[in-house]
Amino acid sequence: MPLEQVKSLHFDVFGTVVDWRTSVVTELKEFGKRKDIEIDWFQFADDWRDLYQPSMEAVRCGDREWRPLDMLHRESLITLISRHNITGLTEEEIDHLNKVWHRLTPWPDCVEGLSRLKTKYILATLSNGNVSLLVNMAKKSGLPWDAILGAEPNRGYKPQAQCYLGNARYLDLEPAECMLVAAHNGDLDTARSHGYRTAFVVRPTEYGPGQDIDMEAESDWDIVTDSMNGVADALGC
Amino acid sequence: MPLEQVKSLHFDVFGTVVDWRTSVVTELKEFGKRKDIEIDWFQFADDWRDLYQPSMEAVRCGDREWRPLDMLHRESLITLISRHNITGLTEEEIDHLNKVWHRLTPWPDCVEGLSRLKTKYILATLSNGNVSLLVNMAKKSGLPWDAILGAEPNRGYKPQAQCYLGNARYLDLEPAECMLVAAHNGDLDTARSHGYRTAFVVRPTEYGPGQDIDMEAESDWDIVTDSMNGVADALGC
Repeated sequence: MPLEQVKSLHFDVFGTVVDWRTSVVTELKEFGKRKDIEIDWFQFADDWRDLYQPSMEAVRCGDREWRPLDMLHRESLITLISRHNITGLTEEEIDHLNKVWHRLTPWPDCVEGLSRLKTKYILATLSNGNVSLLVNMAKKSGLPWDAILGAEPNRGYKPQAQCYLGNARYLDLEPAECMLVAAHNGDLDTARSHGYRTAFVVRPTEYGPGQDIDMEAESDWDIVTDSMNGVADALGC
Repeated sequence: MPLEQVKSLHFDVFGTVVDWRTSVVTELKEFGKRKDIEIDWFQFADDWRDLYQPSMEAVRCGDREWRPLDMLHRESLITLISRHNITGLTEEEIDHLNKVWHRLTPWPDCVEGLSRLKTKYILATLSNGNVSLLVNMAKKSGLPWDAILGAEPNRGYKPQAQCYLGNARYLDLEPAECMLVAAHNGDLDTARSHGYRTAFVVRPTEYGPGQDIDMEAESDWDIVTDSMNGVADALGC
């Protein structure tokens, strides 16, 4: 069975491990109440996420040098603060708001599921989040990573090949010994094209109640499930 | 008090966290018995370590491109196998022997001391060991790192500046928010020159019973102790 070769699990984080939308909106709403700012914070969070791919694209295509996601997030935040006519924020307040991405909350199945998986596999991040973001998130929530890898140590952004190939190389493993765990069919498709095994974890509310993408497996991924415990079950952990 | 600024602890690993000499000799002796090879395995281990600095120096000075320590260790091992007239080893046996550095045993105080420190600080490796070596070592012995950093993600070998400065940058911290924990005065000296705080943990048997270096603190390091629990005591963990 080919899954017996797998020695390491690599995790997409935003959406797959943490519920970014609920976490961001919860903090933004509290901030708005404290500062007496009344806007649609769901819209603000969705707008922020909408700027995520374009901000990385300028780096991927070589128009800009590689820089950590915190910097891209902050640029997008400044754009949105202006677009939503929010005024009077200090640099410290903006920095703190920006680091809400360091404080995202895991889906309820993750700490238990990852802890089960850790007994048998090397667990690494394969996220576009930068190292400090992922380390701070893990410290806050008890995510038991063995290695913080992904975009920053590989100087690229998914779906750039160096992220997948570099993660395998850092662990001195072949891609066939690596499995990507993700809630996004596109990410899994790229990982498979580079030789990874694949596990799809459906997260039907990642984008809120009206979500219409990644609602089901769009290929014959090695594992298809709806929780991190489901991945652990499938891998006999 | 300046130590209140410290948010992250960065660890030298070989000698400071793990007892490389005893671990290597124990495995080499077992290997020799199995293969009926009778040589002085202490000498072999010390010879291997003696080739460590020269092998990195060729990379540091730019004569060779950066490559992981596993590759340098393997080249040194091949040299020593020849020098000690050992013949008939397969590539697999050589690979397995080489990875003894992935299987080193921590000093007895480390897992407990690090676990205490982890409650209050980010714990990162600042080792010349490559990522897979450090990940495999941590999995085997339960070393609770938050981030595997050091030589490989910074593409340099200590005492090159990018190792110290890069570790701080990966965590989005100032050097003054970082403390190096090491059993080697020279390493601490370099770390301090880059703005790190410093903790010296004396390991008087790292090099065996005749050790005559790093037997005491040679400067006014912020912390001077003889165990990882001593570092935890000093930092109030």
